[in-house]
Formats: sequence, C-alpha cells, structure tokens
Amino acid sequence: MARLRLGMVGGGQGALIGGIHRIAARIDGQWDLVAGALSSDPDRARASAAEIGLDPARSYAEFAEMARAEAGRPDGIDAVAIVTPNHLHAPAAIAFLQAGIHVICDKPLAATMEQAEAIAAAVAASDRQFILTHNYSAYPLIRQAREMVAAGELGEIRLVHVEYVQDWLAEETGGKQAEWRTDPARSGAGGCIGDIGTHAHNLAGFVSGLDVAELSADLQAFVPGRRVDDNVHVMLRYEGGARGMLWASQVAVGNGNALRLRIHGTKAGLDWAQEDPNRMTFTRFGGPAQILTRGGAGAGPAGLAHLRTPGGHPEGYLEAFATLYAEAAARIRGETAEALPGIGEGMAGMRFIAACLRSSAENAAWVAP
Amino acid sequence: MARLRLGMVGGGQGALIGGIHRIAARIDGQWDLVAGALSSDPDRARASAAEIGLDPARSYAEFAEMARAEAGRPDGIDAVAIVTPNHLHAPAAIAFLQAGIHVICDKPLAATMEQAEAIAAAVAASDRQFILTHNYSAYPLIRQAREMVAAGELGEIRLVHVEYVQDWLAEETGGKQAEWRTDPARSGAGGCIGDIGTHAHNLAGFVSGLDVAELSADLQAFVPGRRVDDNVHVMLRYEGGARGMLWASQVAVGNGNALRLRIHGTKAGLDWAQEDPNRMTFTRFGGPAQILTRGGAGAGPAGLAHLRTPGGHPEGYLEAFATLYAEAAARIRGETAEALPGIGEGMAGMRFIAACLRSSAENAAWVAP
Amino acid sequence: MARLRLGMVGGGQGALIGGIHRIAARIDGQWDLVAGALSSDPDRARASAAEIGLDPARSYAEFAEMARAEAGRPDGIDAVAIVTPNHLHAPAAIAFLQAGIHVICDKPLAATMEQAEAIAAAVAASDRQFILTHNYSAYPLIRQAREMVAAGELGEIRLVHVEYVQDWLAEETGGKQAEWRTDPARSGAGGCIGDIGTHAHNLAGFVSGLDVAELSADLQAFVPGRRVDDNVHVMLRYEGGARGMLWASQVAVGNGNALRLRIHGTKAGLDWAQEDPNRMTFTRFGGPAQILTRGGAGAGPAGLAHLRTPGGHPEGYLEAFATLYAEAAARIRGETAEALPGIGEGMAGMRFIAACLRSSAENAAWVAP
Amino acid sequence: MARLRLGMVGGGQGALIGGIHRIAARIDGQWDLVAGALSSDPDRARASAAEIGLDPARSYAEFAEMARAEAGRPDGIDAVAIVTPNHLHAPAAIAFLQAGIHVICDKPLAATMEQAEAIAAAVAASDRQFILTHNYSAYPLIRQAREMVAAGELGEIRLVHVEYVQDWLAEETGGKQAEWRTDPARSGAGGCIGDIGTHAHNLAGFVSGLDVAELSADLQAFVPGRRVDDNVHVMLRYEGGARGMLWASQVAVGNGNALRLRIHGTKAGLDWAQEDPNRMTFTRFGGPAQILTRGGAGAGPAGLAHLRTPGGHPEGYLEAFATLYAEAAARIRGETAEALPGIGEGMAGMRFIAACLRSSAENAAWVAP
Repeated sequence: MARLRLGMVGGGQGALIGGIHRIAARIDGQWDLVAGALSSDPDRARASAAEIGLDPARSYAEFAEMARAEAGRPDGIDAVAIVTPNHLHAPAAIAFLQAGIHVICDKPLAATMEQAEAIAAAVAASDRQFILTHNYSAYPLIRQAREMVAAGELGEIRLVHVEYVQDWLAEETGGKQAEWRTDPARSGAGGCIGDIGTHAHNLAGFVSGLDVAELSADLQAFVPGRRVDDNVHVMLRYEGGARGMLWASQVAVGNGNALRLRIHGTKAGLDWAQEDPNRMTFTRFGGPAQILTRGGAGAGPAGLAHLRTPGGHPEGYLEAFATLYAEAAARIRGETAEALPGIGEGMAGMRFIAACLRSSAENAAWVAP
Repeated sequence: MARLRLGMVGGGQGALIGGIHRIAARIDGQWDLVAGALSSDPDRARASAAEIGLDPARSYAEFAEMARAEAGRPDGIDAVAIVTPNHLHAPAAIAFLQAGIHVICDKPLAATMEQAEAIAAAVAASDRQFILTHNYSAYPLIRQAREMVAAGELGEIRLVHVEYVQDWLAEETGGKQAEWRTDPARSGAGGCIGDIGTHAHNLAGFVSGLDVAELSADLQAFVPGRRVDDNVHVMLRYEGGARGMLWASQVAVGNGNALRLRIHGTKAGLDWAQEDPNRMTFTRFGGPAQILTRGGAGAGPAGLAHLRTPGGHPEGYLEAFATLYAEAAARIRGETAEALPGIGEGMAGMRFIAACLRSSAENAAWVAP
Repeated sequence: MARLRLGMVGGGQGALIGGIHRIAARIDGQWDLVAGALSSDPDRARASAAEIGLDPARSYAEFAEMARAEAGRPDGIDAVAIVTPNHLHAPAAIAFLQAGIHVICDKPLAATMEQAEAIAAAVAASDRQFILTHNYSAYPLIRQAREMVAAGELGEIRLVHVEYVQDWLAEETGGKQAEWRTDPARSGAGGCIGDIGTHAHNLAGFVSGLDVAELSADLQAFVPGRRVDDNVHVMLRYEGGARGMLWASQVAVGNGNALRLRIHGTKAGLDWAQEDPNRMTFTRFGGPAQILTRGGAGAGPAGLAHLRTPGGHPEGYLEAFATLYAEAAARIRGETAEALPGIGEGMAGMRFIAACLRSSAENAAWVAP
Repeated sequence: MARLRLGMVGGGQGALIGGIHRIAARIDGQWDLVAGALSSDPDRARASAAEIGLDPARSYAEFAEMARAEAGRPDGIDAVAIVTPNHLHAPAAIAFLQAGIHVICDKPLAATMEQAEAIAAAVAASDRQFILTHNYSAYPLIRQAREMVAAGELGEIRLVHVEYVQDWLAEETGGKQAEWRTDPARSGAGGCIGDIGTHAHNLAGFVSGLDVAELSADLQAFVPGRRVDDNVHVMLRYEGGARGMLWASQVAVGNGNALRLRIHGTKAGLDWAQEDPNRMTFTRFGGPAQILTRGGAGAGPAGLAHLRTPGGHPEGYLEAFATLYAEAAARIRGETAEALPGIGEGMAGMRFIAACLRSSAENAAWVAP
C-alpha cells in the first residue's frame, strides 16, 4: 500500500511536539513527510527543513503559500500536521481545509472560542478529515477501558476521577516550551487548563462515555507574575448523575507527566496511569484487583487493534501517538476509525476551557460547558 | 513503671473498633483493661466482658454507673476509652470527665455540633485529658512528614490533596458496622464525611499545618435509599493561599482503605498512602524521587519517636494506633505529647463536617468551617 | 480465659529480638511476662527487669536457676521464650524442658548441629511443647499461599525462588546486633546463612510443601576480615523434581529486609514480599495477575484464621509474630495449631545450614541436607 | 542527511521479530527498507514483500541471490538485517559480509559454536560492520546504569543478579514462534538459555563491566517431550571476585517478559526492570532509595544520548531497539557508537551458552566460558 504524503506546519528547530508527530507518523510506515512550513522565521524554516531532509523546494516560508502550492502539485500532500502554538491553529487549518487537504491538528483546538468556531465552520464546509491529536486516548489500555465501560463491565458509572499533574512550571522559567504556553496571546486565556486540563477532560469523557453537565472550577496562578493558570481544581457533575473531580497542575513538585484516570461503577472500578501505560487495575466489587496488561487477558477488539509488540515488551507514548497517525491514514483511505478524535472533541475541549474560566471567575459557580 | 488502668465504653461482641483499641492499648504494655460497659444490652455486655476476661464485678450495665463506681475505687480506672457509635460519645465523655477520669474518645467527636460543644465545655471545666483517636496521624512517616513541612523542607505549601476511599458501602448492605454508620440518628447527619472524611481532613491539617479558610463541598448518596452521604467531593482554600482537594468515598469500587496524602510546596512534594505506610515518596524540585522509609534516612525526632521494629519489618495500623495509647499514658503521667489529638482537633472536625453539609446543601457554595 | 505466664531468657537492654517477642506476646492478650533471666550480666539483667516492670524476685541472674525456681512455684511460668544468641539456645532450652516448662525458641535452633541434636533429644524426652519462631511463616498471606498450594491451585510445583536480602552488614560495623551474629562462637559457623538463610529456606518449604533433595551452595564473606558468610547463593533440587534458587545477603546495598518468595507451578504462580505483606500476586496461566489481599477474596480458613483488622488496615511484622504466640498458647491449652513450627523445622534448618557450609567448602558440590 | 538503505533476510508473514526490526529502523528516520528475502518459501516471500510495499524486483527468493544482486546495484542496500531462526544467521551473515554489505544480526549469534566461529572469521576478514541486536542494552536507563558503574558510583561491584522470566512456553504449544525455538536443529542446543538467557548474560556484563570467570548451571526441560531447556539456573563467579545469579525461564507462570537486573557494590545498589523501563532504583548505602527516571536527574551523557520524548512520556521496547538502528547508521557513517554490541558480544554469548550446557551436563560443575 502506497504511503500517504504528509506536510507539517510548525515543528521547527527547538520545538518539541513537531518531532514527536514526525516519529509518530513514521512508526507504522504509512506516511512520508514531504513538505513543511516549519517556522514563521524563514531562516529557521529553511534550516529545520534541511535538518530533517525535506526537499528545499517544498520547504515553505509560510503556510498559506504551502497550502496553495501543495494543492496544485500532482504529488501534493494528502494531509498536513499543524503543530504550532494554539493561536495559529485556526488560520492554518482553515487554509488547508479550503485547499482540499486533510488536517491533523494539535490540541487544544485553538486559542479562542472564536478561532475554534471558525475551524468548525471550515470543517463543516469541507469534505476533508479533521483530526485532533488527543494522543492519550489511543493507548491500547485506554481503548480497552472504553470498550469495557461500554460493555457494561463496570455497571452504571458513579465516579470519574482524573488528574494530570506536572511540575515543570513550578518556578518562573524560560525556554521555548514555557514561553508560549504562559502567554495568553499564543496559548489562549487558559494555561494549564488548556495545555493539559483538556487532555484530562477528553480522556475522562472518552473512556466513561459521559458528558459533563456542569462544573465548578477553581483556577490558580501560583507562580508570581504568571498570566495564566498553573493549577486547576474542578468538580464535575455528569449527565445521568455521575460525579467527578479533575485536577490539572504544572506546579505539583515531584510529578513528571502524571495523567491518571479512575472510574468507579456499581459493579467494578478501573485505574490507569499514563506513566505506566501497559498495566491497568480492574477490580470487580468483592473480587481481587486484576492487573490487566496491554493486549492481555480480557482485551477485546479495541484493546487488541494496534499492538506492535507482544505483552511484556512495553509500548509507550510514541506508539499511542502513532496509532492516531495509523488511524488517520485509514480514515483518509476510507476505512472506519471510530475512536479517532476530531472537531467534536475539539469543540468540547474549548467549551470545557471556557466553562472552567467562567466558573473560576465567578468564584467556582456551577457552569454548563 | 506501673501500668495505667483502662476502662472501655462500647466495644462489645460484634464491634470492630473496640477490639482494635484493646490491642492498641496492649502493644506497648502501658495499660491494663480492667473495667467496661461494653454494650448497652446487659446480656451482651456480660458475655463480652467474660470473653475478654474482665472481672465480672467491673463489667457494668451502663456507663454512668461505671463512671461513678470506678471513680470511687482506690484502684479505679485512670482513663476510659469510648468506642460507641457517635451519638453516645457526648454523654459518656461528659460523665467520665466529671468523675475525674481521663477520656480517650473515638472520632468523630460527636453526632451533632450541640453534643460536641457539650463535650468541649466539659473538657474546659475539667483538668483531665481528652484524647481523640485520629490514629492515622500517628504513623511514623506522617509524624516525619509533619516535621519536614514544619522545618520548611517543602518550601511554602501550595497544594494539599487528600483522599480516603473505600468500597464497602457500594451496595445496600447489612451488618453492624454499616447499620449505625448509615443511620443519621447514630452517626450524625454526615455519613462518609463524618466516618472517614474527618480523618482525611485531620491528616491534611496535621501534616500541612494549615487551616481551611473556606471550602466548597458536593456530597452524594449514590446507593438508593441511603440517608447519609456515601461520597464527598470538596475543594479547599487554606489560610495563606494554599489550595486543595479532598475526596472521601465508601462506594469507590476497588478500594479498601485507601487514605492518601499529597502535599506540594515550592521546594518539594511528598506522597504517602496508608495501605503502604512504611514508605513515603519525597521529591525535591528537579531531583529524583526519594523513597523515605519508616525511621530511615532523613527521619528526625518525630519520625524516630515510636519505632518498635527496625526498618524493613513493617509496622502497621495497630502500631500507629498503639502510639496514641502510649502517648496518652505519657500525657497522663505528666510528660509532653504534643502531637496527640484532642478536643481542638475534635471541634475542628465537627466544624468541617458541618461546613461540608452546609456547603453541599447550598449547591457547593463556599463556606468557612 | 486466664492468661498464660511467660518467662524470658535473654532480651535485656540493647537486645532487639527480646523486645519484639514481648510485644508479640502482648498483642493478643494471652500471655503475661512474669519472669526473666534477661542478661548474663547480672547488673544488666536487674536493670532490664526493672525497666520492663518484672517483679525483682523473678528476675534471675541465670537461666538454670530460673528454670528451677519457676518450676517450683505454684504460679510458675507456663513457657519460656529463649531469645539469646544462638549458642545459648541449647543449654537454656534443655534446662526448661527438663523442668517441665514449654519452650518458645528463637531461630536458628542452635549454633552447632551437636547442640541442635541435644535439644531434639530433650524435646523427644519431654511432653512439653517446643516452638521455633519462624515468624515469617505466620503472615496471613503466607498461610493462605500454603493453603492454595496444598489445594492444588498452582498445579504441580516446578519452581521455587526465595530471596532474603539486607544491607546492614555491608560495611565493617559495630553494634550489639552485628557483633554476635558475625562471631562463629556465638552464631555458629554460618553467618548470613544461619541468621536469614534459614528463614528463607523455612518459608520456601512451608509454602511449597517440598523438601530439598540436594543443594549446591556458594557462600562468600565480602567484608574484609569477616569470619562468617555475608552472602549466600544456593541452587536447589527438590524432591519430586521442582528446582529453585535461594539468595540470602547482608551486603546487598539498598535492601532493608527484603524477603520474597515466588512459586511457579504448572497452573499458576504466586509472588509475595515481606516488606509489603498485605498483598500477594497470584496469576493463573493465561489470566491476569490478581492482587490478593490479607483476608480478602480467595482466602480460605488458614488465610482467615488470625486477622485483627479489616482489609486495608495493614498488619505487619509484629502481628505475624503475635500469631505464633497465640498459637503457642492454643497448643499449650491442648488445641490444634498445625502450622506452628517446632523441632522438626529447627532440625531441618540446621541440616540446611550444614549442607550449605559443606557444599560451599567443596566448591558448591551437590549435597543432600 | 540521506537515509541508509536496508535489506532484510527473514521476517516474513507470521514472524515476530522482523516487524519489530522494521519499526525500529523507521523510528529515527535514518533507514529505508528497500530489499528483502523475507521467507525461504518463495510464495510467502513474495506475499510478505507486497504486504510491506517492497519493490517486487527487490524481493528475493533467497538470501545469496539477494547479496549478489544488491551488491551489484548502484542503489544497493547499505546493510542487511538478519532476522531468521538462529541456524540461518551464519550463512546469511557471511554471504552479505563477503558481498561488502554491513550486517545487523539478531541474537544469539548462531545455533552452534562452529557457525559462530565462521561468522567471526568473516567479520575479521571484512571491513564491514557487524552489529548484534542485544536491544535491551540500549534502554536509556541501562546506558545510564553502565555509566554510573563505570564512574564508580556503586563502588566495587560485589553482586550481580539478573533474571529473565517468561511463561509463554509453560505448556506444550504450537505457533511459529514456539516451534523453531524448541527445535534444536534451528535454535541450537540451548532453548531458553539461547533465546533469553543470552540477553540476561549480555545485560549483566554490559552494565557491570565484568566478565564471567566461571559458572555453574543447572538446566531443566519441564514440559514433557521438550527437547531443549525451558528453565535455567546459573551461579556466577566474575573476574575480580564479584558473584552473581542468573535465572532464565519460559515456564515461570505469571511472568510476561520480566527481565530484571540488580547490581550491588560497596557504595550503592541499583535495580531495573524491563517491563517498567523508564524508572530505576538507585540507593546509596545508608541513604534513601532514589527513583531515577529516563533522562532525569543524575543522567550523564550516555543516559541522555537517545531521548525522543521528555520525562514522563514513556518510551519503551521499540525505542530502545531503534537506538541500535540509529547507532548502526552512525557507525556506518563513520561516527563513534561505542555501546553498540557486535561480534565480541556475540561470541561471548555463544561461549556462555556452551558453558551452561557443558556445566549442566556435568551436574552443574564449574566451567569457564
């Protein structure tokens, strides 16, 4: 099967997530990266392109030109990966969609609700795919957890607890990653809530199948001078009566990338942590805790769909991310990939951010997202 | 050193916590249990006394008589342990205090604020000790954690996360333990919040040294027909600016007695879980996580004060409980035992319960405890 | 039920294990310590007795006198706990057995095979109980593990892996504990092999139900100048074809008291570690690992026999030790206590030590114990 | 930088390790797979080539033809990956080396010592690279561990304990993977010892820097009818006085791919497990255990060399494998890659297998490898 052709906007030298997208796209051998507008700084764009072996003719100084040019080539890109700071998602995504090119976009969807709605409108007006890289939802055990919840193995869901805690912003810090993420003009009004809170929100909904009916959020900026939140406390009320808590933090000293999801139903509970992703604890009421393993005993079709190694040979973050690229390729080829997040998840995330900000501004009043 | 003489109110056949108090009192060899009013049912009181080898002459049918009689004996009890359902704490505690007998009382302090205040008044009017068995605060690593926080090893505290989750009430259930704990007349208006939420609240304050300024609580009763809460979500704002979350649940399927405390400051974070109490994770910003062990490297005087076995020979729940009895004996003998919880902690717990109930009734409004 | 009367030989000030025996004897309220010959140094014996509140008239300067005197009292001790260095076990045990007093003896049985045989002869000639405190065999999950193996839940046993590793002797060290344990005259020719290797050997046999047919041992003394082994490697061949490995060390830096047992059969495997004793991993072939908990799902009568707290309220080392004292009391009262270790286990341990020493002296030749 | 061109021998449909090599080669974007002799069955070779998108003209029916043809093309492969059963390594490796093509070969080096020596001779006669995929040695924390040992952070090494235990061969089983691995004609006389014992041996030597002076091995075939060992016990004596144990098993029910290495020196100890590869426990004598993380605090140049994601974003088995491919590319381009295993490690592994078989045949006599 011929590989699909991928372009990239953003992801030049010094960027983090661009390199991760490139590895993810390579892992399953379904994509060739052939074009890019890797930086808004032309010199850095050129140097970045050279470093990763792009044809100089397909290294563009800016994305609009790239969309136009690639749409006009017989061997033009099938899809573009947008891995810029949040405030640039909208113009880029809209340009490529309008040029007839599929879009794979980093999260959160945009820096503002207005931008998000513009993307949604462009998606609605297009027949191209729009995929949002909520990569944590692609871990095999997360897929299995969702399948188990849907099959009723947990009974009726009562409780959803999700936390995503880090410490890398515990002090005033420089560095490219910190800089744009703590600048409201580029990241949006939400800081931690947008950067990682949306991942937590997405994961909880993805597995539980539940929508948040209303939430009460208390956001803080602990580091003096910080213009966006760096810690987020949320109480959740789900449609149908389940309740939950969400904690996201970038100042919880001692934590690396500690995303953890626990769901408790009338019949069973489960517990999964991203830093140890090949194991999940599942406990039926009154029974012993079971350690389910990636692709192991108890896995159904969803849990078995994207295994690259046998059990005991740990897969990790990059493999989960690669699954999104594999599924994006499948979707573009006309196959089904129902778990792949898209514009719906993107808008839900934006409404979640907005609701948290609004609630917090109103002293944690209950707000419907 | 001669042993002290202990009496017990409650704790007859079928009771759980009475047996635990008796073991805790024996472990360090400082107490002899010599009298009791073990049950409000005279037959059961008598049978219970015989079973544990009490002198029948000192097995009383009711506590008031016991207080009177023991106060009049030259070899009368030095202290009484009150291990009844919550609504009986007040009359018993007051009777013994007024009889000049020290009181060791199970938590929460009482079923109602009115009862609690009556106890507090009796304590104030007496020169006897009043000790509340917040046993989790006596784990050696909890003592060490408190010492480390006080010494500034965590820097300024920003975040306090405490959870205490169980699943034994996930279904409608009978049994002596469940029965009174889900009956507002005996347990008080709070269910889970009083039974275990107060432990979580106490532990968080004990280690952090912080007082809750205001809280927003969302309480649920998930099991149909249940008259008290069985799950509790609370957001916390501490004096001085720290924030926190508290989760207590008796319906979180898959959890046994999962009390966990995490505290994050500007300089370091710590993480301790009651079910694995001989280890605590401590991480300085930018450094590797360290696994501190009971009495091991890094322990100060408080962490070293009550060790009965060398490292690697696990102590558990009963030993922590025994420390309260050892310290109670020390206090009664005139020694210092500054970490021992008393009426102050009891009243703080009652105000916490009341504040949570009030907040929850007002749709999780912020309330000062 | 009236308490039994206990005496103690050894266990004076500065001793470790004596204090542990005393707590263990107190926990279940079945013993009163009423007499002792706590030290071979009369001053220390007296001071030690005073410190723990013994009647001075029953604090003896030496054990022979104590055996005689206690045997002659109407309220004389029912049993004696011998907690001296190994080389004193034999004379003391023989004296008390001959005086008609039950013996509870620390392990290993003796410093030499000759002493061990003298004890065995005295036991054979007496109608008194002889109990050896292989305390690790009394952990509830170890009892459960043994019950599961016996019930065939693991299938036919193929593999037994046991390790008991510490680091407290990694350097030349002083201290009372180290001193006698590294002195062949007091500990016996084996160092680590006798002190902890025998615990490992006992535990493996206790749970697996298997006897060692032959073994190949390689012993080392890593610390310069040390006169006994401080690290032990053994390959095991069991009767019936199972194989195993045993590692005991007191120089494995980073380990506290890391006793771990793994058993693998044709149908299932289990894994238990003493430092986390309230959990055991049990895995059926092809199924998920299950985390069995003390007294939890899957426990049979043996696993449920000695629970003092509900699940999630950790019991530890002292409670397991206390079970030996509770069972000793039961046995002395004429009840059954089939899991209690005695002279048979003591002799098996001595043969194991001797076989390891002989094998190691012959360059790890296979030797039958 | 232009990608290198890779060919593959073996790895057709139904093979496991071929697919893993292909992913590993793709991850860092330095290789293009352009040719293959994927199966000795021509139909399967063709179908396999089509499935992975090889140019049909470069899908060969057998490896000798492939070596010849590729050597003759201007765009011929730079290197070949040999991923066949063990007995085919030698003829293939020799053919490609003689054709001037670099070789990346799966382990163990060969099925027999004779074959191994033939490879070694061909390597010696060639100026091409020969790389053996001891992939576990490429985990970042293993690289860091080696660096720490070499820097003396553990002091003088005393103990090396390595185990590699699985259960997938606990029963008589079919399947392509089991079939050739339990057939002495294809895997060599060693079963488990060759398949995974050599990984354990390699890893222990890689990190400790020590060579085995002599060993005593006891091999078993537990499953009735099995013609090769499925469980391996080895005691090790290293040059310089360190001692060790090695356990490899494919019948240890409850284990997936449990490779674990522990090294203890005079100053510190470390503990790493492949199934949780982003963490390593490091403990200085008398200090608290530290949890070192991939690329985190304490990492030196070797530990930092091949990071693709930030801490807390787990890398796994495939990323470690990919590092071998990245380093192979570097080496072929003339750069240094000193940690990359080659013919020396291959011969050491063969001598280890032979020594274990010889020792076991002589009742676990000590044998120098």
